[in-house]
Amino acid sequence: MTVESLAADELQGGGAAGMMPFVYGHVDPALFPIKQLRQALREVLAVQGAPALNYGASLGCGELRDYLREKLSRDEGLGVERDELMLTSGASAGLDTAVRLFTVPGDTVLVEAPSYHEALANIRDHPVKLAAVPLDKDGLVVDSLAERLESLTLAGERPALLYTIPSFQNPSGVTLSAERRPRVLELARRYRLLVIEDDVYRDLCFHDPLPPSLYALDTEGVVIRLGSFSKILAPGLRLGWVLGPAEHIDRMANCGLTLSGGGANPLVAYMVAAYCRRGWLEPHIDGLRKSYRERRDVFLAALKAHMPPGVTWTEPGGGFFVWLTLPASPAASVVLAQAERRGVTFLTGEPFYAEGGGERHVRLAFSYLEPQVLARGVEILGDIMSRG
Amino acid sequence: MTVESLAADELQGGGAAGMMPFVYGHVDPALFPIKQLRQALREVLAVQGAPALNYGASLGCGELRDYLREKLSRDEGLGVERDELMLTSGASAGLDTAVRLFTVPGDTVLVEAPSYHEALANIRDHPVKLAAVPLDKDGLVVDSLAERLESLTLAGERPALLYTIPSFQNPSGVTLSAERRPRVLELARRYRLLVIEDDVYRDLCFHDPLPPSLYALDTEGVVIRLGSFSKILAPGLRLGWVLGPAEHIDRMANCGLTLSGGGANPLVAYMVAAYCRRGWLEPHIDGLRKSYRERRDVFLAALKAHMPPGVTWTEPGGGFFVWLTLPASPAASVVLAQAERRGVTFLTGEPFYAEGGGERHVRLAFSYLEPQVLARGVEILGDIMSRG
Repeated sequence: MTVESLAADELQGGGAAGMMPFVYGHVDPALFPIKQLRQALREVLAVQGAPALNYGASLGCGELRDYLREKLSRDEGLGVERDELMLTSGASAGLDTAVRLFTVPGDTVLVEAPSYHEALANIRDHPVKLAAVPLDKDGLVVDSLAERLESLTLAGERPALLYTIPSFQNPSGVTLSAERRPRVLELARRYRLLVIEDDVYRDLCFHDPLPPSLYALDTEGVVIRLGSFSKILAPGLRLGWVLGPAEHIDRMANCGLTLSGGGANPLVAYMVAAYCRRGWLEPHIDGLRKSYRERRDVFLAALKAHMPPGVTWTEPGGGFFVWLTLPASPAASVVLAQAERRGVTFLTGEPFYAEGGGERHVRLAFSYLEPQVLARGVEILGDIMSRG
Repeated sequence: MTVESLAADELQGGGAAGMMPFVYGHVDPALFPIKQLRQALREVLAVQGAPALNYGASLGCGELRDYLREKLSRDEGLGVERDELMLTSGASAGLDTAVRLFTVPGDTVLVEAPSYHEALANIRDHPVKLAAVPLDKDGLVVDSLAERLESLTLAGERPALLYTIPSFQNPSGVTLSAERRPRVLELARRYRLLVIEDDVYRDLCFHDPLPPSLYALDTEGVVIRLGSFSKILAPGLRLGWVLGPAEHIDRMANCGLTLSGGGANPLVAYMVAAYCRRGWLEPHIDGLRKSYRERRDVFLAALKAHMPPGVTWTEPGGGFFVWLTLPASPAASVVLAQAERRGVTFLTGEPFYAEGGGERHVRLAFSYLEPQVLARGVEILGDIMSRG
């Protein structure tokens, strides 16, 4: 995205046109494969118009589900049955449905500190309590998870769900280490916890292969994994998927909302199926990886060049985000106020903490802006922090 | 829909291919304006590709919201402000969001008896209780509503919502009379009840104008009205809208699910906006009215010709449904079993009753099948009931 072409009014807030927004954890619209999607859509409406425009099967377009099952088998060696995968209207709809169906009022949902702020808002719209468990550079701190589960249980609370983003986490950019993953599952089994694994950044891995997902390691049916086309194709499609035990997928596919409206976005699902069937998604994802890796590299180099002593940051191996930790002063909010006067905007840490904190943290997204814009924005931030 | 072209596997159950399904309250796919939608989409992806494929504004595509506001002004003389209308992923998503945000656990949601069974399932997925209020030929029985509200309140319950389908109701086909509408609003005000008005059949009115909607009559901000493109364009678009007081629309637009996923189905919304802007929706709706009126007329004539004495039915002025009341025997379930052996399927009344009943009722949808198929199906049902 170039600064000039920002159409902030069409986005979810966070920076007027002309700003350098490090706010958006979005695909750069310049990277949308518009021509190919148009061709796929023309094909669908010419050949499959009526079914694509009608109510869809509760699990979603069969052709797209089969493509995803093949992709999971090819990329991760996962054997996913037809009744273990359901299309959703984006990963956020999958999370909303899981919280609605798999909690009862008063349950506690464990989340990471920090965690994706809009997911926290999504969960908070349900009658549940949130409990935050800290992260470190290797992801969720499993000992802290164990302690929190123990103290909640002793207090008579019912921890029902764990919402976690183990790969290239939003907002921190960290990845849950291979060593910790089995321990998370062990705790989930012991405390009868359902794990909602938000793995939407998995395909945006810049070099080393990621550890297997919690879903892949799960032998007891305690994990529901959320996927999305929003990060690898286009968010305006509103299309994602859920992997989980057949009984859970069946419950989600037969909830009132799905029975009433039918499966997720049929027209778009047929279009994406046609796009994928032509073999277009794989090279597109390769291209995104290259673009985002370049942006990440430029971004980290700029941070190294311009950040004053005392500022530290994560070095994500994929995804969209870098997480800064500032020294005691200036506070992130003070930096933000000065930065916005100079055309740079970002999110400070507070909204990512379910139980408070974050004042000294900053989330910067490198996915949305072109390299030279990223570098210039970091230079401005460095200048502000050096004076602060 | 011809019997041959039924693709039941792509639909939400209720009859295998080759059946004559009176189950589906669906638009006949043969009536989808596929060519025009294709042209609209080509236009969108050529001109507005990037915004249409990106996260959308929380209230939804501004162009489509403005078109809907003009339509409401033109058709109903309604002045709807920009902050009083929000796009949704279908009316079912609007209902789900309203129940999620505007009830607390233990609240009671009042529904009609009978009411749309999938909406009941939608509401039941939330931690609320259901209370059913009977209908008669003039719609919701307001005296019964008043009594139920009184008894619930005396019992210490909190009636929070009324879910009503006042126009061409699903499943009964009846319409709430003009006389009763102000009384429903009066009760809503007195008991601080939020009314969810599901008005998705309003545009499918066969002759006389409908009474003003509850939303149109509301002067106190107690009504949220649900609309949908599923009945007037195509359900596979997954696009609807909500009208309501600005404060309620603001809450829905800023719920976690919307903040996370953005406004409803941007790509499809831009496509439908382009379709409407070309003036294609109005003549399309006129065509649907003609088709469905013809089907309704053929259907009612066939009922008159073939139903045995003792069977009565509603005569809807619009929408998709006729509601049959059978004599004491045979039970509707017995008729269904015999009918399915002869290739005719429908829904019996039980699922439409939140608190039991319906054994002697049958919902028949005349929207989905071509006239000669409708007539043949009714003939078979009449034959079975006459022998019963």
